[in-house]
Amino acid sequence: MDHAGRRERLRATAAAAGLDAVLVTNLLNVRYLTGFTGSNGALLVRTGGADLLGTDGRYTTQAAVQVPDVEAVIDRSTVPALARAAVRGGASVLGYESHHLTVDGLHQLEGVLAEASGAAAAPRLESVRRAVEALRAVKDEAEVAALRQACAVADQALAELAAEGALRPGRTELDVGRELDHRMLVLGAQAPSFETIVATGANSAIPHHRPDATVLRHGDLLKLDFGATVDGYHSDMTRTVVLGHAADWQREVYTLVAESQAAGRAALAVGAEVTAVDAAARDVIVDAGHGEHFLHGLGHGVGLEIHEAPGISALGAGKLAAGMAVTVEPGVYLAGHGGVRIEDTLVVTDGAPELLTLTSKDLLVL
Amino acid sequence: MDHAGRRERLRATAAAAGLDAVLVTNLLNVRYLTGFTGSNGALLVRTGGADLLGTDGRYTTQAAVQVPDVEAVIDRSTVPALARAAVRGGASVLGYESHHLTVDGLHQLEGVLAEASGAAAAPRLESVRRAVEALRAVKDEAEVAALRQACAVADQALAELAAEGALRPGRTELDVGRELDHRMLVLGAQAPSFETIVATGANSAIPHHRPDATVLRHGDLLKLDFGATVDGYHSDMTRTVVLGHAADWQREVYTLVAESQAAGRAALAVGAEVTAVDAAARDVIVDAGHGEHFLHGLGHGVGLEIHEAPGISALGAGKLAAGMAVTVEPGVYLAGHGGVRIEDTLVVTDGAPELLTLTSKDLLVL
Repeated sequence: MDHAGRRERLRATAAAAGLDAVLVTNLLNVRYLTGFTGSNGALLVRTGGADLLGTDGRYTTQAAVQVPDVEAVIDRSTVPALARAAVRGGASVLGYESHHLTVDGLHQLEGVLAEASGAAAAPRLESVRRAVEALRAVKDEAEVAALRQACAVADQALAELAAEGALRPGRTELDVGRELDHRMLVLGAQAPSFETIVATGANSAIPHHRPDATVLRHGDLLKLDFGATVDGYHSDMTRTVVLGHAADWQREVYTLVAESQAAGRAALAVGAEVTAVDAAARDVIVDAGHGEHFLHGLGHGVGLEIHEAPGISALGAGKLAAGMAVTVEPGVYLAGHGGVRIEDTLVVTDGAPELLTLTSKDLLVL
Repeated sequence: MDHAGRRERLRATAAAAGLDAVLVTNLLNVRYLTGFTGSNGALLVRTGGADLLGTDGRYTTQAAVQVPDVEAVIDRSTVPALARAAVRGGASVLGYESHHLTVDGLHQLEGVLAEASGAAAAPRLESVRRAVEALRAVKDEAEVAALRQACAVADQALAELAAEGALRPGRTELDVGRELDHRMLVLGAQAPSFETIVATGANSAIPHHRPDATVLRHGDLLKLDFGATVDGYHSDMTRTVVLGHAADWQREVYTLVAESQAAGRAALAVGAEVTAVDAAARDVIVDAGHGEHFLHGLGHGVGLEIHEAPGISALGAGKLAAGMAVTVEPGVYLAGHGGVRIEDTLVVTDGAPELLTLTSKDLLVL
């Protein structure tokens, strides 16, 4: 679906809710709806008129190239400029993103609407909640293609580092993290998806450890959680390997997490409740007596953000739909000893989910 | 000044404003006030009681290590948890960051406060505006040290690339950008400060061009706008070089921008109005008849954010103070031909400003 198609879906939602226009301020939502990648932009989607993209003079050319089918309003203050245009267009009910607009932003918007309306009544503001994020949760083919590429870059980067012996005792977490990041860039990533996690030894028991000068040692677990960004779309993968020789406890924990992760992947089906998906994987770990060592959610949607809808956890709500791109990432963390997490990015389909991160999940002893 | 000292300054501001506590939700402000670098955190600073850091279970260990002097409240919903603690502590006026909290976030906070207060009156919410950002605008010694190091990494990365002949005809903008980024990481940057700008030929006339497959050619301008992040602090530098041979028009534009930039730097003094600093540099360009080719502001503060207070532009307000770290970055952009921007990061002092980006500003012909 092209950007115009995405805007049509939002327009239909807005019309059904009785809105004359929606003011989109979340920049990622603007990008999703138009393709615009500048650092300052807002979008007015109108149910009975042409849409308008607001941005500033730094992006005049870029807006024309990236968004040829939407008129640009060039103004340093994008939201006021679009609000005035909405008033001129006769809008009486204006949708806005209350999960994104700040309290100060709302007050400014109200002021501009009142001033632009003069003696007439100002448009009424009504939250559209996360209407655009709800559209974004279901990926179209172009988005899945970008995610596939982002996952392939991460797979390839890890394969190259492993083949070159870069994951060996004596190196530091920081060394490994920098090389992973650089390799992803060379392979075509715009950036890492997030701050790459490299955690060895006892650090692997810290779910979100920042790589530091800790040296990789023989017999240690090495947990790598990383991803690549391609065309704005984020991949997310965790693999845990062991250096030189795996102890029995490491194999046991690894096997348990791998079973849990497989159960979670198997539960990814159209119509499945996200809480049921979380439970499918969590039950494996709880049954083995490690429930208190797996305290985070099972997974999350990925796309233009590294964490987006749907959340897959015991506290989540809603069902999976075809086209949702999600992670499945159970872990068992034994404080002071080490931890294992295994994570894939997958796309929910009418059949079996499509696995996008293709690196082996066998326990690798490097 | 240590983190406790920064909290004391906020506490004094809050007490003077009649607040019992301030709920800090901007994560960078939380970092500034505590040293906490996790991805989920909020802070309650109380005028008559101990402060509280809110974060979730992923960061229990990290919070204890990074913020040993503030009690942590471990809860997935940090803001509600801290709001309930404020009510339990008897707060009757609670400050919050209206420029950061979303409309939905405010409604949730109001609900939690009402519920936690039961039959009693809920605390009144009062915006503290950008009180923490105002503190952040003036850097202390530790911050200047981090900025110095971030600038040194960027200087060194560019020097190495130039020495190795990496900036030569035949390579692409993307090649150069990736190598600059990688070199900064190897030299100790956590990440580039922002998406590195590499713009050659006519692309150099686009102020914020994203590097693409454009090939560097003999006789072209090459504009590099980049920076390194060290300990969370961002450097920002632009240099424009010419490849092989400089045409007269390129030398003329370069000389003009260099004169403008020198005038801007010379205007950085304690007590100077930011509008006067902008004018000092802009007048040079306007007087040469190129005013319409310099349409952005002269500079901005840098620190934990790449753009922060103070803004230095014709639309800015306020005066410079000792310890402010700012950029000075005039440019002249001739659409279709090419553009020149020269940018330094400097610290305002009681004497001459301290220049942190030390790369030469002579026109380099590579």
